[in-house]
Amino acid sequence: MDLGMIGLGRMGANMGERLLRGGHRVAGYDPGDAARAAAAARGIEATQSLATLVEALPAPRTLWLMVPAGPIVDDTIAALQPLLAAGDAVIDGGNSFYRDSQRRAVQLAGDGVGWLDVGTSGGIWGLEEGYSLTIGGDAALAQRLAPLFAALAPAPERGWGRVGPAGAGHFAKMVHNGIEYGLMQAFAEGFAILQRKQEFGLDLAQVADIWRDGSVVRSWLLDLCAQSLHGNPGLEGIAAYVADSGEGRWTVAEAIDLDVAAPVITQALIERLRSRDDDAFADRLLAALREAFGGHGFKRG
Amino acid sequence: MDLGMIGLGRMGANMGERLLRGGHRVAGYDPGDAARAAAAARGIEATQSLATLVEALPAPRTLWLMVPAGPIVDDTIAALQPLLAAGDAVIDGGNSFYRDSQRRAVQLAGDGVGWLDVGTSGGIWGLEEGYSLTIGGDAALAQRLAPLFAALAPAPERGWGRVGPAGAGHFAKMVHNGIEYGLMQAFAEGFAILQRKQEFGLDLAQVADIWRDGSVVRSWLLDLCAQSLHGNPGLEGIAAYVADSGEGRWTVAEAIDLDVAAPVITQALIERLRSRDDDAFADRLLAALREAFGGHGFKRG
Amino acid sequence: MDLGMIGLGRMGANMGERLLRGGHRVAGYDPGDAARAAAAARGIEATQSLATLVEALPAPRTLWLMVPAGPIVDDTIAALQPLLAAGDAVIDGGNSFYRDSQRRAVQLAGDGVGWLDVGTSGGIWGLEEGYSLTIGGDAALAQRLAPLFAALAPAPERGWGRVGPAGAGHFAKMVHNGIEYGLMQAFAEGFAILQRKQEFGLDLAQVADIWRDGSVVRSWLLDLCAQSLHGNPGLEGIAAYVADSGEGRWTVAEAIDLDVAAPVITQALIERLRSRDDDAFADRLLAALREAFGGHGFKRG
Amino acid sequence: MDLGMIGLGRMGANMGERLLRGGHRVAGYDPGDAARAAAAARGIEATQSLATLVEALPAPRTLWLMVPAGPIVDDTIAALQPLLAAGDAVIDGGNSFYRDSQRRAVQLAGDGVGWLDVGTSGGIWGLEEGYSLTIGGDAALAQRLAPLFAALAPAPERGWGRVGPAGAGHFAKMVHNGIEYGLMQAFAEGFAILQRKQEFGLDLAQVADIWRDGSVVRSWLLDLCAQSLHGNPGLEGIAAYVADSGEGRWTVAEAIDLDVAAPVITQALIERLRSRDDDAFADRLLAALREAFGGHGFKRG
Repeated sequence: MDLGMIGLGRMGANMGERLLRGGHRVAGYDPGDAARAAAAARGIEATQSLATLVEALPAPRTLWLMVPAGPIVDDTIAALQPLLAAGDAVIDGGNSFYRDSQRRAVQLAGDGVGWLDVGTSGGIWGLEEGYSLTIGGDAALAQRLAPLFAALAPAPERGWGRVGPAGAGHFAKMVHNGIEYGLMQAFAEGFAILQRKQEFGLDLAQVADIWRDGSVVRSWLLDLCAQSLHGNPGLEGIAAYVADSGEGRWTVAEAIDLDVAAPVITQALIERLRSRDDDAFADRLLAALREAFGGHGFKRG
Repeated sequence: MDLGMIGLGRMGANMGERLLRGGHRVAGYDPGDAARAAAAARGIEATQSLATLVEALPAPRTLWLMVPAGPIVDDTIAALQPLLAAGDAVIDGGNSFYRDSQRRAVQLAGDGVGWLDVGTSGGIWGLEEGYSLTIGGDAALAQRLAPLFAALAPAPERGWGRVGPAGAGHFAKMVHNGIEYGLMQAFAEGFAILQRKQEFGLDLAQVADIWRDGSVVRSWLLDLCAQSLHGNPGLEGIAAYVADSGEGRWTVAEAIDLDVAAPVITQALIERLRSRDDDAFADRLLAALREAFGGHGFKRG
Repeated sequence: MDLGMIGLGRMGANMGERLLRGGHRVAGYDPGDAARAAAAARGIEATQSLATLVEALPAPRTLWLMVPAGPIVDDTIAALQPLLAAGDAVIDGGNSFYRDSQRRAVQLAGDGVGWLDVGTSGGIWGLEEGYSLTIGGDAALAQRLAPLFAALAPAPERGWGRVGPAGAGHFAKMVHNGIEYGLMQAFAEGFAILQRKQEFGLDLAQVADIWRDGSVVRSWLLDLCAQSLHGNPGLEGIAAYVADSGEGRWTVAEAIDLDVAAPVITQALIERLRSRDDDAFADRLLAALREAFGGHGFKRG
Repeated sequence: MDLGMIGLGRMGANMGERLLRGGHRVAGYDPGDAARAAAAARGIEATQSLATLVEALPAPRTLWLMVPAGPIVDDTIAALQPLLAAGDAVIDGGNSFYRDSQRRAVQLAGDGVGWLDVGTSGGIWGLEEGYSLTIGGDAALAQRLAPLFAALAPAPERGWGRVGPAGAGHFAKMVHNGIEYGLMQAFAEGFAILQRKQEFGLDLAQVADIWRDGSVVRSWLLDLCAQSLHGNPGLEGIAAYVADSGEGRWTVAEAIDLDVAAPVITQALIERLRSRDDDAFADRLLAALREAFGGHGFKRG
């Protein structure tokens, strides 16, 4: 099939290449010259503008957005919408908030343009291992574009599916990332306990390796733990500072909104917040209070 | 090699059979007639007592305990110790507390009997898929018995290893189970959020399946989630009551003892406690307090 | 001073009465006949409409809203705004979300109408003990209306103050309630531990009483714990079901938005969610998973 | 009454002075010369040894231990026991673990020596404001020594009581401290949220002051918050490092042992652990994992 990829950063370019390998034709656009050049070197037909990208595609056109979540998505859709015709389709494969996707689907439907929101997991490994794709939007459209998803997924019949109406694909991906936070934190805590237990002199990478086969905790994240710990057993040079990119927050907010108790996903997020606040005011007040009622003294900071 | 398996319940009998398949000779003992008969039917040489089991093995003997953690382990070792000779070895493959294993290693060493504590993961799937084994104890002894571990593990060179001195094998297994609690809780919360979001009408088993390939959260526990949700999408007939078998508690206690913050593993345990206390006094007091200061009323129970 | 109280429910009527006791004149309006009649019986000049209420007050008028947070506040302000003149003032003493208060202040300022948002704590005890009031809005306006606050507060010079611009009063109250959730949960957990420790046969009300004097945990909420436990030592007839009225959720969302780790306030909210979900899907999935990997069985529900 | 105070540190000397003010006679012993001299200057009859202390008291003697929890208590009791006679009494007013107190009661009962464990709260403010005392042990003995407790408590009839058999006094105090952790953390988080909300420019000490009168969160810990924030609004010079002295850990362990869900008390402890681990291994592994699967980069540390 023919596809126009908008956004040729790491994710967009990799996905484009995987589609090429799958026998599809991929044109692309990115505002950055370097990104366009790099994509072209990988076989993607880099175009100079959204307009030329749209012109390069046969109707009905399929435009796949792989740009950062937020206003850039709205700006891109606003620029794209006048260029499209009824029957064309826009896909957002980024980490957009699902309510934004619901709104955008309605906006495009006004012009007869189709919409799919595709929650995409796989990170930088997706090029070789394939991407996991949860798709929200019109079922017939998802069916029509099945060859694209089959090429992106780890296998033609596995790792992708249309899960519900517009928004559902990004909703599922949001929850996926919430789960991911919890899984990561569980592993991180476990290895921290092993690391602190100095009397056993455990080789953390070895333990991770042993668990990779046959254990209840075997998983891809454990594979990555093993890889990280083999490469840098003491995790030297890595600060205890953990960024987050939004989906965890949304998941926590959604859980509360739905009255679902999600203590582990929530704590995983909170620990990330705490990791970035070494001089936490709350802890300083605790230290002050201990001094105030018990004369316990405090560490000067 | 020759091995005597003590405890022919589900785990012990399965491990015995896997050892038989690996070409080893397995004698066994269990106080239960039915367990002995069932094991015999699977090819294990069932003996009538610990004494006859020990007699059935050539020196140096290897006795593998697969009995419930706690006093039964001490009782069995006490009964076994007079029957053994220097050079023999006792292996505890159950979920014993690691400090007990450290103590038992010392106790047996007094008679020249070797000791290995083997943290065993894999559950009822281990017979077919192999067991993950973290081994604590003497390195030379672990090396001598390597053929046994190679047969039990998923592959001869993977899924097992000697990780440290006596106690280290069970310590690693304890932490493994703590991680397992966190992973399970993260998945459980995520699927609960998906389930509560009724507007999308998500098929949870389908979402689980999609994530099994290519996603960041792909894992064996996710495979089991998918299986459970396919078999019983609404989880009908299953009470919101989650048992625990000790290792989670030990992991939490150990984390605190080591001054390691483990909020997620800890919350995963606490949620299990809460699940078993539907009439929680704390929540009733909260309801009473809301009435007391705000006149908010409470639900009668 | 003269004041018009809009909303003559428990909070509004009690505050009206306390203002009367303080020598102020209080007119009032409520859409409910019974509420108006009850207020009139307590000395409040009950009027039949917002219009008659406004007419009953000398300029510059002070209208105090004591209605449920949410659309009713907007509806009331919309109805009120055409009746008011530059120099009049609207006060929202309810539990509105602080961003709504910021918006409403701007809306009224367009007509030259002043605004104060007053975070009001004290519950049903406020009539006798006075209310704690955190005030957001114009400093000069707050100063002009000081006699009202002095009458409502526990003492003329204590328990009230203008803390910042519009929104700040409700923001502080929101955080107050978040803290309240944490305090309540801490007490609830502590008494639950005491209650479960049956070997000591503790009299919880007695322990609460002892702590009320001299201990580090002495507090008004402890006073209420003692009162509740004296009146109903086993908390019989009270379901383990804890409602919440919004401020806790907002506090958690705000903490995350500000990147502040607030694990205890957050857990206190989550426990309330959990208390209302006896058949929690997450726990049922945990039970299903334990069966799936370990054959542990589950409780039927 | 006559009393021998063992341990003349801050707590012991203050309690001795309060007993003197209450009309009792207080002899005392401390291994430190300076502590003895300071106590003597406050009117306590300082003796040179446990033996001379015991000799200085009329039978039946009352010895009150105010020494650090742990082996010093056992050592002191071991030294004291041969000096005592049937009918004498030993009181432990420190923060001992309640199971140790149960054991010590039995040990002393073998010689006919009575025992009381007195959970003492009040910190450095107790001298002036009185101590809250939960008493475990023989009811008749507690009754006989009531004048001592009446003098130590904030008022003769309030703030003290015999709550159960030996151990119960320290058990209640342990839970008191667990609650204290939760309360402190709730306040700390709340003020941290207020502090971070820079747009309102809140004066935290002012807000704390307002809440001290009439609000639901009014409490002694809030009084201390106000005091700390008045003295040092930015908490300058105080490190975000929070020590703990054991009772919180015991409370968490006890809650788990009793199958009571105590998420808030537990999280309050965990946050203290985290505050002391700025270079947390868990967080470094999280950062490594984010890099490994998403190429997100990490902060160098």
